[in-house]
Amino acid sequence: MLLDELNPYLNELASASPAPGGGAAAAVTVAQGLALLSMVCNLTIGKKKFSTVEAQAKDILEQVSAMRAEALSEAEADMNAFTVVMQAYQMPAETDEQKSTRKAALEKAARKAAEPPFRLMTLAAQALALADQLEKIGNPNVLSDVFVGRHLLIAGYKSSKENVAVNLNSLPPEDSFASEMRARMHDLSGTPGACPVDWHGSAD
Amino acid sequence: MLLDELNPYLNELASASPAPGGGAAAAVTVAQGLALLSMVCNLTIGKKKFSTVEAQAKDILEQVSAMRAEALSEAEADMNAFTVVMQAYQMPAETDEQKSTRKAALEKAARKAAEPPFRLMTLAAQALALADQLEKIGNPNVLSDVFVGRHLLIAGYKSSKENVAVNLNSLPPEDSFASEMRARMHDLSGTPGACPVDWHGSAD
Repeated sequence: MLLDELNPYLNELASASPAPGGGAAAAVTVAQGLALLSMVCNLTIGKKKFSTVEAQAKDILEQVSAMRAEALSEAEADMNAFTVVMQAYQMPAETDEQKSTRKAALEKAARKAAEPPFRLMTLAAQALALADQLEKIGNPNVLSDVFVGRHLLIAGYKSSKENVAVNLNSLPPEDSFASEMRARMHDLSGTPGACPVDWHGSAD
Repeated sequence: MLLDELNPYLNELASASPAPGGGAAAAVTVAQGLALLSMVCNLTIGKKKFSTVEAQAKDILEQVSAMRAEALSEAEADMNAFTVVMQAYQMPAETDEQKSTRKAALEKAARKAAEPPFRLMTLAAQALALADQLEKIGNPNVLSDVFVGRHLLIAGYKSSKENVAVNLNSLPPEDSFASEMRARMHDLSGTPGACPVDWHGSAD
């Protein structure tokens, strides 16, 4: 069965090994949301009834397909960055010099690890704007799949925000990278059509 | 790579074939949320620091593991029920008798198709209550994974609600099964500790 193929991934996610963890799960959720938007495009394109929106549906399909590959590649980037964080944790911390080297390595790793989930937040926000377009023009028989896609993208957005936050919170309060990243997250949530908190599906 | 194994599923989800669709995606999202709760349990159990909560973490782990298998089996049930809906749509509708037979088959299929997503809503609500427990007792180093798990479970809950709604909305307004199901959904969202709409993670 198709879903049996998901078990190796789900078992790894469930295991004590810390990667894949929340970062990969967020990315896979965004990828699922994007795949559902693709499905709605595919059930809209090529039907006479929807010929006036065909070009727009094709354009959305092209974008969401590319974005799905990006989401999965952010999952890989997330796991790699997390490995570097784990390696820094394992550095020796006996002498003052070792402690200082380890601290610098941990901070550098945390900054790097904040990037993949931030890019995923951006991707989810862009995808939510496409879901809004598709809600208006897509085949109404599969409108509930647009709504489900939106719930998954919102969850991916919020989850990625947790994953950025956990890395930034491990940095000193005065860290300029952290301040800049927090400002960028704030800007993102203020983008018109990109504030997932306000989005909801039909059954809310 | 581990995530490459997800591509056959994601490609099927994205394709014009209507199953797997939103129902399977909701179930996989719930399964991912449950897997993250398992991970947090596995990173809590067996550590001296958390020995006072070890029994509770083991109990939660046992529950979430069983629930993950249930979530995936609801995905299968959803796809099977959806196939029956599609078959009913394809029934002949030329004579009055055919129309009436088809209408009855469609209604029967819609009632059956509302059940797997309703069971998934129930499962997600139960899992959210376990996430609340785990937030209090789990290894704080992986607290953000509890939050991500919660976002995914909420998305699975809301998505399943869409999937129940789309089936109930296809039934006549006076349908008694639909009224009963709507009442059960209302009860579910009122269960103490089971109102996912109010749940949020740390980064909200």
